[in-house]
Amino acid sequence: GEFKVAILTVSDTVASGAGPDRSGPRAVSVVNSSSEKLGARVVSTAVVPDDVSKIKAVVQKWSDIDRMDLILTLGGTGFTPRDVTPEATKELIEKETPGLLYVMMQESLKVTPFAMLSRSAAGIRGSTLIINMPGNPNAVAECVEALLPALKHALKQIKGDKREKHPRHI
Amino acid sequence: GEFKVAILTVSDTVASGAGPDRSGPRAVSVVNSSSEKLGARVVSTAVVPDDVSKIKAVVQKWSDIDRMDLILTLGGTGFTPRDVTPEATKELIEKETPGLLYVMMQESLKVTPFAMLSRSAAGIRGSTLIINMPGNPNAVAECVEALLPALKHALKQIKGDKREKHPRHI
Amino acid sequence: GEFKVAILTVSDTVASGAGPDRSGPRAVSVVNSSSEKLGARVVSTAVVPDDVSKIKAVVQKWSDIDRMDLILTLGGTGFTPRDVTPEATKELIEKETPGLLYVMMQESLKVTPFAMLSRSAAGIRGSTLIINMPGNPNAVAECVEALLPALKHALKQIKGDKREKHPRHI
Ligand code: NA
Repeated sequence: GEFKVAILTVSDTVASGAGPDRSGPRAVSVVNSSSEKLGARVVSTAVVPDDVSKIKAVVQKWSDIDRMDLILTLGGTGFTPRDVTPEATKELIEKETPGLLYVMMQESLKVTPFAMLSRSAAGIRGSTLIINMPGNPNAVAECVEALLPALKHALKQIKGDKREKHPRHI
Repeated sequence: GEFKVAILTVSDTVASGAGPDRSGPRAVSVVNSSSEKLGARVVSTAVVPDDVSKIKAVVQKWSDIDRMDLILTLGGTGFTPRDVTPEATKELIEKETPGLLYVMMQESLKVTPFAMLSRSAAGIRGSTLIINMPGNPNAVAECVEALLPALKHALKQIKGDKREKHPRHI
Repeated sequence: GEFKVAILTVSDTVASGAGPDRSGPRAVSVVNSSSEKLGARVVSTAVVPDDVSKIKAVVQKWSDIDRMDLILTLGGTGFTPRDVTPEATKELIEKETPGLLYVMMQESLKVTPFAMLSRSAAGIRGSTLIINMPGNPNAVAECVEALLPALKHALKQIKGDKREKHPRHI
């Protein structure tokens, strides 16, 4: 079957109803339109405010109970006092995946120097890959694009075992 | 008003009086000559030996009591046994800012492969941004240059809130 | 004298005798053929399964008892459940060396996008530099090549003191 993806919009504004969720639907569209290359489909979405315990509650449920293969969080990765998505994420991940952050940063910096202000974290919890992405809808598309050449293989590896042949560099 | 910057030279040699501080004055000059783009001014400088508790004491005072917006440390980021500036810094920062490290490394490697030996850390404590830079005076200039396109925005975000419009990728 | 290097192959397959060690001998050959530039020689090799405590036991002995200057681990850096080399390594290192990871990632990504799936860690324990490398034999060669311009200086610095002149950016 296809890999199951969940997308969490992290935003005080959206959670309070003060503004529309522009990044969530965009991320759903980006993932589902990459489904051939990614072998994945969005099955859950949610919105939470910029609050560590609320972020953690949803991500933990999606990982431990709902057994999502991939969780993308959108927003809360900047430098403002309310930006705490990376801190919430780091409390949950068991294995860091720094190469994913490297390629997202590398590609995002080609678009704008403000990309250096992303504090995104990424890692594995159980058999779920969790990746922070910026809240900007275009940034989400660029980050997924940056990961696409290896993301399907990443999801296979997380479920897999060492006896599988794996490609170069891993 | 302008953002307040403090610059800490970390060096056994300078602290003991055995040699002049070449990186501190250079960093002051670089920051103040970028004041238009950065909206910041150096208001404090100090010199400490390569000692975790002495580094921490100054950085913590500048952050928690003097409410500096930006603290740059110079030196102590290499591989020798006395190089402990990143370790001292990591004990103080509450939120990591890996993108700043990425761009400093990216730009420094264009100048010399020895840049790979920088172990700089960076992050936010309260409303203060703390960034480790190498002790070499030219490296300081190159690192500030690398950060300049987004540094003013970083300082604004740290003091700001989510209701401010923020630019792409954050 | 020359720097002492130890190479640890981390692989359930090799440790159980189910397959040959292709990366270990390749790494020995790469290091020894770079001995002029690196000033280093492989003096120990071992094979362990993908097991945190077994990895730690060998690395700790090589570092604390045998006083190796450089330990390269090969394999166990990917996304499968058995890949735990970075986690074992992080429990041992006292000072992180992120710039080494940056250049290995930068160079590896030029060869294949699957390089983003390396979760390698690197750092200093006592006077020993420990670097995770992927298990793929070609990747090992590329990673050593990426580090070569600064690796000898890194090993000198680890044994050295601040009074030594050090090059730019450190
Ligand atoms: Na790069």
